[in-house]
This record gives sequence, C-alpha cells and structure tokens, in this order.
Amino acid sequence: MTENEITLAIIKALKEGRKKQFQEIIDELHPYDIALQYKTVPAKHNHKFLSYLSIEQLTELMEELEQEEQLEVLEALGARRSTKVLDLMENDELASFLSDLEPEKIKELLADMKHEESETVQNLMNYPPETAGRIMNNRFVWIKKHYTIGEAIDKLKHFVELAEYLNYLYVIDEDKKLVGVVSYRDLLLADINDRIEDVMYSRVVKVEVDTDQEEAAKIINRYDFVSLPVVDEDNVLRGVITVDDVLDVVIQEANEDIEKLSASGKSIDFNTKPIVAAYRRLPWLIGLLFVGLVSGGIISGFEDTLGTVVALAFFMPMIAGMTGNTGTQSLAVVVRGLVTEDLSIKQVVHLVFREFWVGIIIGITCGFLISMIAYFWQGSFILGIVVGSSLLITLIIGTLAGTIIPLILYKLDIDPAIASGPLITTINDILSLLIYFGLATAMLSQLT
Amino acid sequence: MTENEITLAIIKALKEGRKKQFQEIIDELHPYDIALQYKTVPAKHNHKFLSYLSIEQLTELMEELEQEEQLEVLEALGARRSTKVLDLMENDELASFLSDLEPEKIKELLADMKHEESETVQNLMNYPPETAGRIMNNRFVWIKKHYTIGEAIDKLKHFVELAEYLNYLYVIDEDKKLVGVVSYRDLLLADINDRIEDVMYSRVVKVEVDTDQEEAAKIINRYDFVSLPVVDEDNVLRGVITVDDVLDVVIQEANEDIEKLSASGKSIDFNTKPIVAAYRRLPWLIGLLFVGLVSGGIISGFEDTLGTVVALAFFMPMIAGMTGNTGTQSLAVVVRGLVTEDLSIKQVVHLVFREFWVGIIIGITCGFLISMIAYFWQGSFILGIVVGSSLLITLIIGTLAGTIIPLILYKLDIDPAIASGPLITTINDILSLLIYFGLATAMLSQLT
Repeated sequence: MTENEITLAIIKALKEGRKKQFQEIIDELHPYDIALQYKTVPAKHNHKFLSYLSIEQLTELMEELEQEEQLEVLEALGARRSTKVLDLMENDELASFLSDLEPEKIKELLADMKHEESETVQNLMNYPPETAGRIMNNRFVWIKKHYTIGEAIDKLKHFVELAEYLNYLYVIDEDKKLVGVVSYRDLLLADINDRIEDVMYSRVVKVEVDTDQEEAAKIINRYDFVSLPVVDEDNVLRGVITVDDVLDVVIQEANEDIEKLSASGKSIDFNTKPIVAAYRRLPWLIGLLFVGLVSGGIISGFEDTLGTVVALAFFMPMIAGMTGNTGTQSLAVVVRGLVTEDLSIKQVVHLVFREFWVGIIIGITCGFLISMIAYFWQGSFILGIVVGSSLLITLIIGTLAGTIIPLILYKLDIDPAIASGPLITTINDILSLLIYFGLATAMLSQLT
Repeated sequence: MTENEITLAIIKALKEGRKKQFQEIIDELHPYDIALQYKTVPAKHNHKFLSYLSIEQLTELMEELEQEEQLEVLEALGARRSTKVLDLMENDELASFLSDLEPEKIKELLADMKHEESETVQNLMNYPPETAGRIMNNRFVWIKKHYTIGEAIDKLKHFVELAEYLNYLYVIDEDKKLVGVVSYRDLLLADINDRIEDVMYSRVVKVEVDTDQEEAAKIINRYDFVSLPVVDEDNVLRGVITVDDVLDVVIQEANEDIEKLSASGKSIDFNTKPIVAAYRRLPWLIGLLFVGLVSGGIISGFEDTLGTVVALAFFMPMIAGMTGNTGTQSLAVVVRGLVTEDLSIKQVVHLVFREFWVGIIIGITCGFLISMIAYFWQGSFILGIVVGSSLLITLIIGTLAGTIIPLILYKLDIDPAIASGPLITTINDILSLLIYFGLATAMLSQLT
C-alpha cells in the first residue's frame, strides 16, 4: 500500500468505526508514519484516531510530534490516558517536551505520573542543556557479571520494551558501577551456559553526565556505536545515549553553526511565525547596521580624499567585501574542522601558518588582478597601485583574523561560530577601509 | 589504563619483540583506538606494529585511516597481506579508498583480490557519487522466510563477521527480492522453532540504489534505524546502509552547506596544504571580486550624484551590507530547513509570505532607525528619508531574494546552498546600490 492508500484505509476505518481494522493498519506502521497519518487525516477525525490507538502507539506518536501538537494530544486524551502515555515515554523525549513549558504546567503534568518515572525525568532536567545527562535515557537493560547467558536472555525477555533501540546489555557490579558490555550478537553466539564475565567486553567506552553533547556525538561517530553508556563521577551507570539522539545532535549543532555563521538568529524554521522570526533576526541586523555605520564614520573621516578622487568609491565595496569574504572562508574552515577534530597547540600553529600562506597567495593573485583592472578602467597607474596593494594587505589580514579570532574564542571556551557576525565583520570592515583610504590619502598628491 | 599508558606498553612490547603481549593490548582496543596508537607510536616502530597485527586488526586499522596513510600501510604490508586486507575491508570503505586513485593503481590493487570481492567493489564504484548505492555495503546476513528461528541463528553464527554492525537479518525470497526484516532482539525473544515468516516485519522501509544519500540519511533519522536496506529497481536486495555511514553523510552534508554558504571552497580541512586551500578558495574570491566591480560600475554610473553629495558614500557599505545579510539569513533558514523537511507547494507559499512579512517588519524597524541616525548625524532631513526608505525597500527585496532564489534552485534540483556566493550577493548588491543611488539622484535637487 502507498501512503495515500493507507490514509484512505484509515479514514474509512475511522468513519465506519472499525477499531480492529484500524489497529491492523497502524500495527504495520513505524512511529514516524503513524505521526504522518495522524497529521494527514482531516482534523475532524483526530479525536477518534487517538481514541483507537493503544497506549503504546500513543506513546510512539507523541515522541514524533512537535511540542504544540503534543500538548493538543494530551489535552484530547484526558488526564488518565495522558498520564499513562507520559509514564511510557522515553525520559529524554519527555524531558525535552517539558523543558520549555511553564513551571506550573510541568508540575501539573508530572503530578499524576508514577513517582519513579517523574523523579527520573526531573533528575534529567537538572542536567545543564546540551550535556550527555540531558540527552540520555534510562531505557536500557543491565545485568550482573555472574549471570549466565541464559539468565541474561531471560532478563532481556522480561524487559523487552526497554530493549527496543539498543543492541547491548550493560554489565554492572553490586555498587551499580559499569564494568562491562555485551552485545545481543554475543548473546546469540555464545553458549547458553557461558558466564557473562567471560564474554563481556570490559574496556567500556563511556561519557560522564556533564560531558558536552557534541563530545558524546564525536565519540559515537568515531567508534561507530549504536549507543553509549553515561556514568556519573563514581562510574555508576546513569543512562545511555543512542545513535538516533546523536543524529539529532549533529543536525542541531550544524544548524547552530550555520545560524551563527550567517548571523541568522536562533531556531528559525519553516513554522516560525513572522513576528518571532523578525524578532530573532533583528538583534543581528541592528548590530550589523551599527557596524555599517562605523565604516561610514571612517569614510567620513576621509571625506576630503574621497571628494578629491571620487573614483576611490568605486572600489570600496569590492575591498570591504573581499576582506569579509576571505575572513568568513577561514572562519568556516576552523568552525567545521573543530566538529570532528580536537586541536593541539602544534596544530594551531600549523593552521595559523597555513592560513598566513593562503592569505599571501590569494592576496598576490587578487591584488595583481585588481591593480591591472583599476589601471585599464580608470587609466591611473597610481590608483591601480593603491587599490592592488590595499587588497593584498587586507586579504592577508582578513584571512588571519578569520583564523585567529575563532581559535582564541575556542580556547576561551566560547563557541567560535558566534565570532562571525559581530567580530570578524567589524574588524575586517574597519581595517580594510583604514588601509585603503590611508594608502590613498598618503599618495593623494600622485592621484590628482 | 590511560591512552598514554597503553602507548608506553605497546612501545615496550614492540621493542622487546613480545608479539603475544602486544596482541593482548590491541585485542582490548576499538578500531579507532588502534589507529590512534598506530599514529602515536614513533614512526620507526610502524613496520613492526603492522607485522604484529592480525589480518582482521589490519583491516580495522585501515578503515580508520586517511587515504594517504592507507597507501603507506598497503605498501608496508607487501602484496600478499595487503590483498587479504582489501578482501576483508567493507566494500563501501574500500570503494571510498579507491575512488580518487589513478585507474592504473586501482587495477593493480584489485588484480589479486578475490574475484567476487573486487567485482562487488567495482559495481559499487559504478553508482553515482552521493547515492545510496555508493555508500551501501554488502556486510549483511540474509535468510529465507521458511527458515526457523534456530536455522536463522545458525546462519548468523556462520557469518558472524558479516553481522558486526547490524541488528537485523533481512529476509529474501527465491528471486533475492526483499520481503521482510527480523531484528536480533526478535530472534532472542522468539521460540527456537518459530518460523521467520511469522515473526518478520513485512513492511520494510528501504531505498533504491540511486536514491540520494541525503534522502537515505533523512529516512534513517526519521525512523531511528540502525541500518537501511538498499534495493535495485526490481526490489532485489543489493546492500545495506548503516547509521555510522549516515552520521558521516550528515556531517559531510552540513560541511558542504557551510562551505557553499560561506563560499569557502570544497573540502578544506586542517590538513589541506596552503597552495591547495588557496587554489580551492580563489575561484570564489575572484568571482566575488568581479561582483564587487559590478557594484563599482554602478557607483561610477552615479559619479555626478556622489561627487555632489559625498555624504552618500558614508551609508553605502551599510546598505549593501544589510541587504546581503538579510539575504544570507533567509538563505540559511531555507537551506537548513530542507535538510529535515520536504516542501509542498502550500508550504512554499506559506514560507514566501512569512519571509515577506519578516522583510517588512525588519525593513520598517531598521529603515526608521537609520533615517533618524542619518538626520541627526548629517543634519539633512532629505538624506534621512533617502537612506531610510532605500534600506526599507532593499531589506524587503533582499529577504525575498534570499528565500525565493534557493527555493527555485531546489525545484530545479540544483543544490540551493550554492546560491549564496554568486547569485544572492550579486543580485542584492546590484539592487541595493541601484535603489539607493536612484532615489538619491531623483531627490538630488532637495539634497544639495
């Protein structure tokens, strides 16, 4: 059946009140597809759609929705069923659903939940945002190392709903400290009477609860893991991070890098309202407006020079633009490089020297080119020299600024991507105009 | 043991020629860590390091290295061992290792490999870059639907080395067509005598060999899968894509988006040589240089206006810069939105209207602000009007250009991220200067 046929079959079942038929269709769908169908069927059927779903299916549906839709679903379910759904939701999904809500609303939602579940979620929400503790969940199965393979499989069967997305069992000692890991594959391959401690892998790669989520993503990516255990400072197993959460982290971090590099404001997507999008973008734009005015101020300082040789204005956008562009290029290389690599001092020195050479090469190329163009266009040899040598100098400086500033911010533990808008643009704009008009003024007698 | 202690222990074992001790240390390490140790020990030990590794460990090491290092390792291993390693490597890793090499070299490397393996790799390399077929591998285990659970587990045990990273078995019919999927967890939970067709999941989410790799990544991310089967046009199972490859795809695609948005040139990382980096960045910069000259040409067309009111030059960088910035902001929202969402016509219309409103809101805010500033700074009411209304118009146009152009490119199947450097910057620069100087010229009599 295609998606459309499924939708039609679902609507038919809903209209005719055939719950069993509806269930049979839904049973074959993945959570993402259930959510898709829920959003596709006409809104008037929504209530019946929800009432026909089992608690497990409702939970799966909830985890695929946006916060606003989640609230609507809970509203429609009524207190009793929504509490059951919240109990069943993965803790990390629940924590992220709750995180932006009013404290009042959170209290209300958590009030009727199982004490154990609501406590776990509240603990999760106590970890700082963007840490391993915040994105981990407690849906994993642990075993003791003296278990036999048979006992481990029995425990796995017992906690089957917890074991959905993983393919490891984690081994802990009597203090709940993490001592090993066994994959489902190892369970399948071992003899039923083998002991866990003989097949388990004891050098476990793990992260601590306060590890940055980017770091956790780096590790999962490096080792090609499906999940990664999270421990506290005493090596007690607190949760696991799964690769599907890491995929979300990687996409989110890439989006944040792009937001900052393009100074486009936080979290604007296709569904953001105009007024909100404008509100998030305006601070950057107003900041950049004043940056533009600083440039204007510098130009006004050279009003006499400019009044004498109006042709100088023709090359102004090009020089400022080029310096900004080369700075952004270097910045992008640094920001993205830091996603997959850690930097030693040696590499920093190497990188700065590399960019210095890059600046010289592109400076000489572009400087020579523009001086020729300026000469032939405006017929002034001196103007060509002024424009060309300004571009040479500003390209070298722009390249270095785009490299060094994000590296300094990185060492200071400030996100280097944020450097783009304000710092590098301002510095490069100001420096390029100062150099250009400074050189022009110095050679003014030759220019006129 | 910390990483340093491991390194010291490895060096000691190598120096004293204790192969067994060396093997014991390596046995506990993940492939990434083996590669890390290989790169950390002094180069003089490299040869012995390699000679002490088993073929399996060498294969794991190879898959973690960069192409240059891989070639060195193969060189050091000699023909016999390197053929064995190439035979064992995952096909997708091998294909990506081979892809940039000289045809001569590829022939030479493939010559001694098992016929079956080398054929598979050559088939893989025939798929276009960045498709599902190119990143899939054939390291999966298939079963027939009439198997019992016990038979399936036996087959899994037999092909254990193929089953490393997955947690599903794929079910095929007599024509090798994909008909179902069974997870390891299902195998563990089912009774040994159950039939596969009774526990398998028959609505298999899959992609075709020529599906774009971004699309495959979207699907894995949506469904939180660990692997995704790849079929040809006849639904014959050709390979699987694993989530670790998808993580690499997501990072690579994000890097490409940033490269294009910042016009910073293809594939520059911390290890790229200066001359190569400069060579990759120069085309963009030279392009942008000419864009800057087009702006210069427009300004020169208004030389008289500018000569009469030099103060107009003060606001030039601000207006051009702001228009460029708002365009880049919109572009970034569109480009990143497309990573996780598909767009219907309805959404396109919605998005364009949203951005139109955003343009109006930020245009009015910034336009009003700058007209006040211009008035108080330069003491001319008319100049304030010219600057403010120019900014209002250019911000609306810039925002719309940054939204509509990438959407058109997306519909034309051109990567919208590429639109940044050349198109939007050029269009916004030219339009903003034309509007600004056009308005100023029209009101010139009032300005002087």
